[in-house]
Amino acid sequence: MKKQELITQIKQKKSFLCIGLDVDLDKIPTYLLKEEDPIFEFNKQLIDATHNLAVAYKPNIAFYEAYGLKGWIALEKTIIYLNQNYPEIFTIADAKRGDIGNTSTRYAKAFFEDLNFDAITVAPYMGKDSVEPFLDFENKNTILLTLTSNVGGLDFQTLKTSDNVLYKTVLKTSLTWKNSKNLMFVVGATRPDYFKEIRKIVPNHFLLVPGIGAQGGDLQGVCKYGLTKDCGLLINSSRSIIYAGNGKDFALKAQQEALKIQQEMETILAIN
Amino acid sequence: MKKQELITQIKQKKSFLCIGLDVDLDKIPTYLLKEEDPIFEFNKQLIDATHNLAVAYKPNIAFYEAYGLKGWIALEKTIIYLNQNYPEIFTIADAKRGDIGNTSTRYAKAFFEDLNFDAITVAPYMGKDSVEPFLDFENKNTILLTLTSNVGGLDFQTLKTSDNVLYKTVLKTSLTWKNSKNLMFVVGATRPDYFKEIRKIVPNHFLLVPGIGAQGGDLQGVCKYGLTKDCGLLINSSRSIIYAGNGKDFALKAQQEALKIQQEMETILAIN
Repeated sequence: MKKQELITQIKQKKSFLCIGLDVDLDKIPTYLLKEEDPIFEFNKQLIDATHNLAVAYKPNIAFYEAYGLKGWIALEKTIIYLNQNYPEIFTIADAKRGDIGNTSTRYAKAFFEDLNFDAITVAPYMGKDSVEPFLDFENKNTILLTLTSNVGGLDFQTLKTSDNVLYKTVLKTSLTWKNSKNLMFVVGATRPDYFKEIRKIVPNHFLLVPGIGAQGGDLQGVCKYGLTKDCGLLINSSRSIIYAGNGKDFALKAQQEALKIQQEMETILAIN
Repeated sequence: MKKQELITQIKQKKSFLCIGLDVDLDKIPTYLLKEEDPIFEFNKQLIDATHNLAVAYKPNIAFYEAYGLKGWIALEKTIIYLNQNYPEIFTIADAKRGDIGNTSTRYAKAFFEDLNFDAITVAPYMGKDSVEPFLDFENKNTILLTLTSNVGGLDFQTLKTSDNVLYKTVLKTSLTWKNSKNLMFVVGATRPDYFKEIRKIVPNHFLLVPGIGAQGGDLQGVCKYGLTKDCGLLINSSRSIIYAGNGKDFALKAQQEALKIQQEMETILAIN
C-alpha cells in the first residue's frame, strides 16, 4: 500500500486507530471455542464490527506462534480475510524481527510477499544490514522499535551515548539507511514527553504508538507533539478493545470501545 | 537440559560445535526436492551424519517461517526427530525474539514447552521485562544478542555510553536480572579481540559464537580468550557445513567438514 492511501483512509475515517489482534484463547468468549478455528472466528467478527473505525490491524505474531500450526493457519486466514474484504486497511505484522542480512531477507519475504502485510515491526540492535533488507520492498513499511512502552524500555533505550541518547542515535542513524523513506517508528504512548524530541529528528515519518488503554498511555499527550500535517500517528490499542466484552456481544462491545477512541481522534484531527 | 549435561557431552565428544540448520530450498541437493518434505529430509540426513561431531543444532527460525506452514511442519518434525533420537543434543531456536512481558511469555512457551527447545536467542533492546519471562523456565537457556557478527553489529552495540560501551552495559545489566544463571550470550566470531573484555564481565557463562566459516571468523582467536574450564563456548557453523556438497553425498561432505572442525576443537581442548 502507498503511504498516501493510508493518509487518505485516515482523513476519510477521521481515525488513526490501529487495533491489536492479540488473541488469547483463555480470554476470548468461551462460546467461540467450539468453532473449528476460534482464533480466526474471533478476529473476523472483530474486524467486521470495527473496520469503519480503525485504519490498521496489528496481529502480534507471538500470540499466533504460541499455538503452533493452528496459530499460523489462523494468522494466514486473518490476513487473507483483511486483504480480500477490506483492502484499504493497513496491516502490520508485529513480529519484532531482525537478523543478519540473508536471514532478514527471508523474514521480509515471508511477511511482505507470502502473507502480504503492509508493514512489519523490526528490532534495531543488529544495525543497518539487519534492517535494510526490509527497506528494499517498495510500498512496504518497516517499523523500527525506537522507544517502547514497557518498563524495560528504559534499561537501554534512554542510555546516554557519548553525544546523544541511544533511541535518538537509533533514529538518526536509521535515516541514513537506504530507502529510509520506508521507515516508521515504534514510540510508546507511555512516554508522551519524548514526542517533542522525536519530532525534531523525524518530523514527517509515521509513528506507531502502542500503550493506549491497558498500558495507561495518554492519547492527548501523544498528539500534542506527535501529530503532523498528514496525521503521522497510528495509535494502537489491543486488550481494551478486543476484550471489552466476553459474551456473544463481544464484537459489539469492541465496536463501542473503538468508537469512543475514534470520536476522540475525530475531535483531535478537527482542531489540528 | 541441565547445563552439566551439555558440559558432559562436550567432554565426551571433544567438540563444542553447533551446526546451524538454515535450510534454503534453492541450495539443497535438487534430488531432495521430490521428497514429500525436502527440508526435513535434508535436516534428518545431516543430523544422522554429524551428531557424533556436534553438540548442538540451531535452526534459524526465519528460514522455516519463510516457507509458511510447510516450514513450520518441517521445523516441528526436525525438533521432534532430534529430541527422540539424540536426546543428548542441545537444541537452539535461533529466533531473536523479544517483546513486552506477556508476549515474551507466549514466545517462551511456544519454543520451550511446545517445541521443547533447550534454548532460544533473544534481542535485548526492550530490556528486563522482555527477557525475564524467558529466564523463568528452569533448565532452559536464554541466549542474549550481545555483540553480533554482522557489519551492522557495530552501528549501535559498540556505541560509547556515558560510563561504558553498549554491549558491555547489556552484559552487566542482564546479570542483575532474575534467574540470570539461565543466560548465555551471542558474541560473533568475527570479533575475537572483544572476548577478553567479555570474559571479564561473564567469566563462566556460555557464549554462542556464530561467524566461523562463511562469515570468516577465527576459531583459534575466539578460543584464546573465550574458553573457560567448562569450555563455555558453542561455536556455530552453518553454510560451510550444510552446503559443503550438493549431490547425493551431501551428508557425507557435511560430515567431513564437521570432522575438520571437531578435530581442531579436540586439539584446542587438549592443550587448554
